[in-house]
Amino acid sequence: MNPIAEKVISGDIRAVARLIRDIDDGMPGVREVLKDIYPHTGKAYIIGITGAPGVGKSTLVDQMVGHLRENGKTVGVLAVDPTSPFSGGAILGDRVRMQRHSLDDGVFIRSLATRGHFGGLTQSTRSAIDVLDAMGKDVVIVETVGVGQDEVDVVKSAHSTVIVVIPGMGDDIQAIKAGILEVGDIFVINKAEREGSDKTLSDLRLMIDMDQKKYEGGRWKPPIIKTQAVFDKGVTDLLKEIENHKKYLEESAEGLFFRRKKEKVREELADMVKQRLIEVVLERIIDSGDFDEAVESVASGKIDPYSACDKLLQSGFEIKPGD
Amino acid sequence: MNPIAEKVISGDIRAVARLIRDIDDGMPGVREVLKDIYPHTGKAYIIGITGAPGVGKSTLVDQMVGHLRENGKTVGVLAVDPTSPFSGGAILGDRVRMQRHSLDDGVFIRSLATRGHFGGLTQSTRSAIDVLDAMGKDVVIVETVGVGQDEVDVVKSAHSTVIVVIPGMGDDIQAIKAGILEVGDIFVINKAEREGSDKTLSDLRLMIDMDQKKYEGGRWKPPIIKTQAVFDKGVTDLLKEIENHKKYLEESAEGLFFRRKKEKVREELADMVKQRLIEVVLERIIDSGDFDEAVESVASGKIDPYSACDKLLQSGFEIKPGD
Repeated sequence: MNPIAEKVISGDIRAVARLIRDIDDGMPGVREVLKDIYPHTGKAYIIGITGAPGVGKSTLVDQMVGHLRENGKTVGVLAVDPTSPFSGGAILGDRVRMQRHSLDDGVFIRSLATRGHFGGLTQSTRSAIDVLDAMGKDVVIVETVGVGQDEVDVVKSAHSTVIVVIPGMGDDIQAIKAGILEVGDIFVINKAEREGSDKTLSDLRLMIDMDQKKYEGGRWKPPIIKTQAVFDKGVTDLLKEIENHKKYLEESAEGLFFRRKKEKVREELADMVKQRLIEVVLERIIDSGDFDEAVESVASGKIDPYSACDKLLQSGFEIKPGD
Repeated sequence: MNPIAEKVISGDIRAVARLIRDIDDGMPGVREVLKDIYPHTGKAYIIGITGAPGVGKSTLVDQMVGHLRENGKTVGVLAVDPTSPFSGGAILGDRVRMQRHSLDDGVFIRSLATRGHFGGLTQSTRSAIDVLDAMGKDVVIVETVGVGQDEVDVVKSAHSTVIVVIPGMGDDIQAIKAGILEVGDIFVINKAEREGSDKTLSDLRLMIDMDQKKYEGGRWKPPIIKTQAVFDKGVTDLLKEIENHKKYLEESAEGLFFRRKKEKVREELADMVKQRLIEVVLERIIDSGDFDEAVESVASGKIDPYSACDKLLQSGFEIKPGD
């Protein structure tokens, strides 16, 4: 086995930190390590937390970590923040947050800010989750700023997905509906002391209730929990609902736990194939003289890029006939 | 020629609006229309505007549009906002902004919020730019929230790229440096009435000056302009600098205007090949029985996803031997 993989599995914090950094930086060689680690994953319970900037996700996660530690669970936290080129949020956040739990080696917190690498954020996050899982953490919390499809994909990797909103988001709840509502297992109204929290509650409930059919036959219906994370109010209720959801998945007649796993694998594998396809085939096409020639032809108006693209693809590789 | 393409080229506003929506929604058939439109592009001057949320990009763009119209130019504006699933910003923004210029058919404003389609934001934005170009707009302004690599890619499509900051961003200027500084042709300090604008100016100047070598031999050195967009201050100075930059590109001994075009084509073509590769080959692999089998094997722990991925790629297609 790869010596780095061995260290990670034994819980060596420096090896883990280094590997996650290498994942974030898209370093070569990471793939081999992840391959060796993979058989040691699948033990952690993965919780996804997402919501708009400013809803208090970090505070909520910090409180959750505290309670999970009281219950004797070890916890890994991944804060995924792709907005950092401007905000610098990820790095600053890491520093502030490490302080509180810095003396507790049952907690491991890291940020990811990957951008621009093949495979991107989703793939990096999945790999980092695998690392925290393989190092032996009982629970892995993945926190993402809900700004795009990437983030939706990230939370799909979780066993239980928590969507955080705050009172007074009003019309925006309609906007959430688009991609996020379907992936939410539990909804949290944080900063519930603020005006409008009952309105937000009833809006959310209405939206969830609209899909009555989905919940027939005892299927999971997302609960809504009010929290005030800063005052540690409601956080244990949230953890209780996560526990309920876990039980639901495990005990479901349809084998939902395994089904979720399969769904996760399906997405992961599709993304991985996509990434390799780009690395292997695309790079090859771009490095070829044909590509430079095509660029010249398009730039000088001899051919449109769509036709040039078709020609390049035809010359680059051959699809094997289907079975 | 495709009848929709014909309408777009003749400047039919409803056809243009419809086509841009179809691009944003990733509708099939769009590719054929774009193919027909492409020969009619290349006439518009494209300005990219980027910066963190809250720096006042929309206001700045609105004022720019006003002045460009006074000078008799027709203007297309594309507001690219991938953050909309939560903020709903794009749609709201469109409505508010359309009001001011709604009676002026020399102005066409649209938002893009694409997420989750193959090819993604960058490809959609490029296509939408082509549409506004082909419909006959003299100037196309592309405004993006600078939050990630996607946005950097988007502004790379522009002839002149404007980076907007506000006073007091302090440390964040260091963060900007990463991907954004290199693509900035002109820097704007908006809300310049605020405290700290001189500090921001000197910080930016220092950063730009660090690369003295880059500017040798009369190469373009990014100017920094203070604006107060709300009060329409400094906006004409900005437009003058954009005009200067345009002249610089056109008159450069090295043929920079064509070089920029070639760079743009290079990126566009590479992305397009990537997208087609994914559409054609990936879809084929995923639709095959082999893929389902692989998912099952990984989920039940018989194989790791990395090895499963390699096997799938080998079975899906064959790379032709290089020349």
